[in-house]
Amino acid sequence: MEKQYVVGIDVGGQTSKIGVVDARGDVLSQTVIRSDTYGTDADAFLDALADAVKKCIKDSGKEGQVRGIGVGAPNGNYYTGEVAFAPNLAWAANQAVKFADKLSARTDGIPVSLTNDANAAAMGEMAYGAARGMKNFIMITLGTGVGSGIVVDGKVVYGADGFAGELGHVNVVRNNGRTCGCGRTGCLEAYCSAIGVARTAREWLEMSTEPSILRDCENVTSKDVYDAAKEGDALALKIFDYTGTLLGRTFADFIAFSAPEAIVLFGGLARSKEFLAGPIEKAMNDNVLKIWKNKVKIVFSSLKESDAAILGASALAWEL
Amino acid sequence: MEKQYVVGIDVGGQTSKIGVVDARGDVLSQTVIRSDTYGTDADAFLDALADAVKKCIKDSGKEGQVRGIGVGAPNGNYYTGEVAFAPNLAWAANQAVKFADKLSARTDGIPVSLTNDANAAAMGEMAYGAARGMKNFIMITLGTGVGSGIVVDGKVVYGADGFAGELGHVNVVRNNGRTCGCGRTGCLEAYCSAIGVARTAREWLEMSTEPSILRDCENVTSKDVYDAAKEGDALALKIFDYTGTLLGRTFADFIAFSAPEAIVLFGGLARSKEFLAGPIEKAMNDNVLKIWKNKVKIVFSSLKESDAAILGASALAWEL
Repeated sequence: MEKQYVVGIDVGGQTSKIGVVDARGDVLSQTVIRSDTYGTDADAFLDALADAVKKCIKDSGKEGQVRGIGVGAPNGNYYTGEVAFAPNLAWAANQAVKFADKLSARTDGIPVSLTNDANAAAMGEMAYGAARGMKNFIMITLGTGVGSGIVVDGKVVYGADGFAGELGHVNVVRNNGRTCGCGRTGCLEAYCSAIGVARTAREWLEMSTEPSILRDCENVTSKDVYDAAKEGDALALKIFDYTGTLLGRTFADFIAFSAPEAIVLFGGLARSKEFLAGPIEKAMNDNVLKIWKNKVKIVFSSLKESDAAILGASALAWEL
Repeated sequence: MEKQYVVGIDVGGQTSKIGVVDARGDVLSQTVIRSDTYGTDADAFLDALADAVKKCIKDSGKEGQVRGIGVGAPNGNYYTGEVAFAPNLAWAANQAVKFADKLSARTDGIPVSLTNDANAAAMGEMAYGAARGMKNFIMITLGTGVGSGIVVDGKVVYGADGFAGELGHVNVVRNNGRTCGCGRTGCLEAYCSAIGVARTAREWLEMSTEPSILRDCENVTSKDVYDAAKEGDALALKIFDYTGTLLGRTFADFIAFSAPEAIVLFGGLARSKEFLAGPIEKAMNDNVLKIWKNKVKIVFSSLKESDAAILGASALAWEL
């Protein structure tokens, strides 16, 4: 039988990445288009995306051998194939876009499967990354926000409506918690995302007079905190300790739910592994039920960040 | 083909119930033996249990037509078939008992499948009860402790080690939480079990001078609190309001995990439905992420309590 290939598409707020991928996870060809220059016109974006997909397939030399397209997109729903009410995508912010159907119609009927970005990342880790061979794990993406993809018995958990795995929005601070982008307070995401780390830094700088090189920054970002920690800045190190502790004790509750073999971390903030891994593991093992003490691995993604999003989405297409 | 039957066994701290069940969930014959008169001698208990199973099958008149035995037991592990380190079972308190293998060997090789009591309850609800037709739900058993069985895509979640679904031990009070039987503090079980409700009553009676008919009780139990609430006692009603509120806001986080269609409540404390349902639903919908507001049902088990445990365990046997 002729070799088969899939297309992986990672739809982000600013850009969308497209790649043709083989069964081993090698990216044969890839391209990028903007996602943010189409206003509220979803069809215009989908026209441009379909053109880019066709060009990418042509570049790979595998025309006629692409068996499916996998898409990871914010608020993407596996069951309905829709991207609906995604705040960061102007063309899907106030409507439900039948993304999978529309893209398939524009690419000569290649089947399209769609899920949210964190679920796609989980599939990528399972197919090609740190979770290869694992049937039960939880993927946590620590980026601008906190996303999650939960794998039980080798399958992503979608739940009754396709929206399962919103672990960035479990409550971690019950009283006087920070407001979260979701409109509630005290969510994990409000503390343990890149933005959450920056908020912690700004709060702590204001609340104390402790000296810190972070005081020289105009508008502190999580990258600034990382750089300061690298320099040995005590406040910056405490910020990572606090962030890791919140993550770890929350992971202890996640473990009581699905008893995963590992929790896999991915995303911009996960690059601060050297400062986060210790506090996460300590807090997790201090707080978890005895039967799981020192049993659940904390793993940082090993996928090349530039390919990871495409690979994750492409993994979805193999199931088509 | 000749009609087939299964045996369901519910192993409890004091007694074990055995029943022969048909495909519609009718119990053809049943019997009960004690679980607590064998000391640490697991084999003696298993001998007695096997005799009772054989007698029960004989009573049903279905000898040779029993295709499997399903067992629900505290700390029962689906993968290993062991009952291990179960504090309430003297013969398994300090050892791992190969329960499934040993029972099968004592019943002429009828295959035996085993899981914990809450998972068995979940299977019973799915096969015969309030969760019939549901593929995604969470079973919460509110008894002496708080147990849980999580169903995703029609299957009980066992996790990497078979111990998934310990939702009675997620943290609900982070600071100065009550000590829990598991050795940690602030667990859901320490507040929202029958024992937890009694603890709340005793704490509140001591901390205030509010008049309450509960002050007449020697050693307040959850049943006393229920009876007092029935009489309109304000403190008793507040205790249920508090208990339901803790449950509801915790359920909001459970929903973010697996996006269930419903949360099904079962067990002694669930009989206080009239006082718990309102606070649970309010707190759940006040705290849940917007996409699930007023979408997830709170359902109270409709299985006859005397049959429910046997039915749950028997449901496991149909999968054999």
